[in-house]
Amino acid sequence: MPADAAPSFVWVPELCKPGGRLELPESEIRYLARVCRARAGDRVTVTDGRGWLASARLTPGRPLEAEIETLEHRPEDRRAVVLCGAPEGQRADWLVEKLAELGVSEFQPIDCEREAWERSAGRINRWQRLAVAALKQSRRCHLLQILDPLPLAEAISRLSEVATRWLADPGGTWAGGQRPDGRECIGLVGPASGLTSLERSQLSDLEFRRIRLSDARLRTETAALAWASWWSFGVLAAPAARPTSA
Amino acid sequence: MPADAAPSFVWVPELCKPGGRLELPESEIRYLARVCRARAGDRVTVTDGRGWLASARLTPGRPLEAEIETLEHRPEDRRAVVLCGAPEGQRADWLVEKLAELGVSEFQPIDCEREAWERSAGRINRWQRLAVAALKQSRRCHLLQILDPLPLAEAISRLSEVATRWLADPGGTWAGGQRPDGRECIGLVGPASGLTSLERSQLSDLEFRRIRLSDARLRTETAALAWASWWSFGVLAAPAARPTSA
Repeated sequence: MPADAAPSFVWVPELCKPGGRLELPESEIRYLARVCRARAGDRVTVTDGRGWLASARLTPGRPLEAEIETLEHRPEDRRAVVLCGAPEGQRADWLVEKLAELGVSEFQPIDCEREAWERSAGRINRWQRLAVAALKQSRRCHLLQILDPLPLAEAISRLSEVATRWLADPGGTWAGGQRPDGRECIGLVGPASGLTSLERSQLSDLEFRRIRLSDARLRTETAALAWASWWSFGVLAAPAARPTSA
Repeated sequence: MPADAAPSFVWVPELCKPGGRLELPESEIRYLARVCRARAGDRVTVTDGRGWLASARLTPGRPLEAEIETLEHRPEDRRAVVLCGAPEGQRADWLVEKLAELGVSEFQPIDCEREAWERSAGRINRWQRLAVAALKQSRRCHLLQILDPLPLAEAISRLSEVATRWLADPGGTWAGGQRPDGRECIGLVGPASGLTSLERSQLSDLEFRRIRLSDARLRTETAALAWASWWSFGVLAAPAARPTSA
């Protein structure tokens, strides 16, 4: 039995107003044809990844365009920011993908005393593509923002003052007994080689609460993902349903 | 500032009694030397991945052996079994690694109507190596058991009758408002192409409760991981600390 076609849900850098015609990027036209098996005349959902969501109809002819029918904005009710030290090898690729699927708002790579992120334009571009693919897969209208790596202190100085702050730490308070509070939550995970005791003490002064995310030690990327899951489960009531394509 | 050496925690297929000498596998000798920077005379922790945990001292000379000093058994207080359909591409590799890190007991690949697992001896061997590496990384004494793929119905017929059962489903009850109950929990996730409605209805008859793990759709492997995290957070009180090397 063949799989169902994926729902027609695409991402564009910029949306236009209802009545307008939208030129779709080549990548999205290919995605619509091959994965969603969509044809001219079909209705598609389009997002700009900044909360705007449009219902549109594919117009006949080439190039394939989308005629915007309705447009609405969905604010982010809750935001999660993940600050993360460098994991081993290529493990950051799937970390980015999974954070995007789980609905994290921002990914801030941090350079720590023991380990800095390797700088590579190709890597950031690949992460962007992974984040867009995850957005479409999960049909979200907020795209994971991927920031350039920053030294730990500088990254922290840019954080919202009102956001609640957690530091993944096997010696912290067990996650199972607590829930994330506040509209914006920040989770910080040290690099594969760990944070120094000086860094840990600085984070404690900056009101990062230490949280224990497993009954054993986790790798950097696993801890980041476990924190994002914990944040995601933190709403007692069911979150509002996300839109699906028409 | 260099990273600390990893604690000396190794895995062997079979342990011996206190007083006995244990020949270490080549892979573990290399791991001790390169990653843990351990030398003859150092104390190491050794597990067989079946709950047995030994404190041992490395003996001088070649080949490097470990003299067992103390031995104890730690039962599994809670067990999680993950039944999972085939995800896309090579995504199962990291799924296995992450399930092992999070402390899941068994991974049962399931063949569903729309998608079966590719059979490959190399793949199972690679998964075993990933599970052993994750066990050492997280210093657990219970190794993730990796079973051969089975058809869905056969896999379910082998499950414990008393275990509680969950099916990852975007239309299910929100995970954030519930906790896993029972000593053994089973989480089932469909393949990338989804379960058929017949399969879903059969699972419902078999008392699988539908659970919603995110406010959006998750990929197969992400859903499996989110379920494992949810199970792991499900203990209100902090779990007992796992042993660390002496």
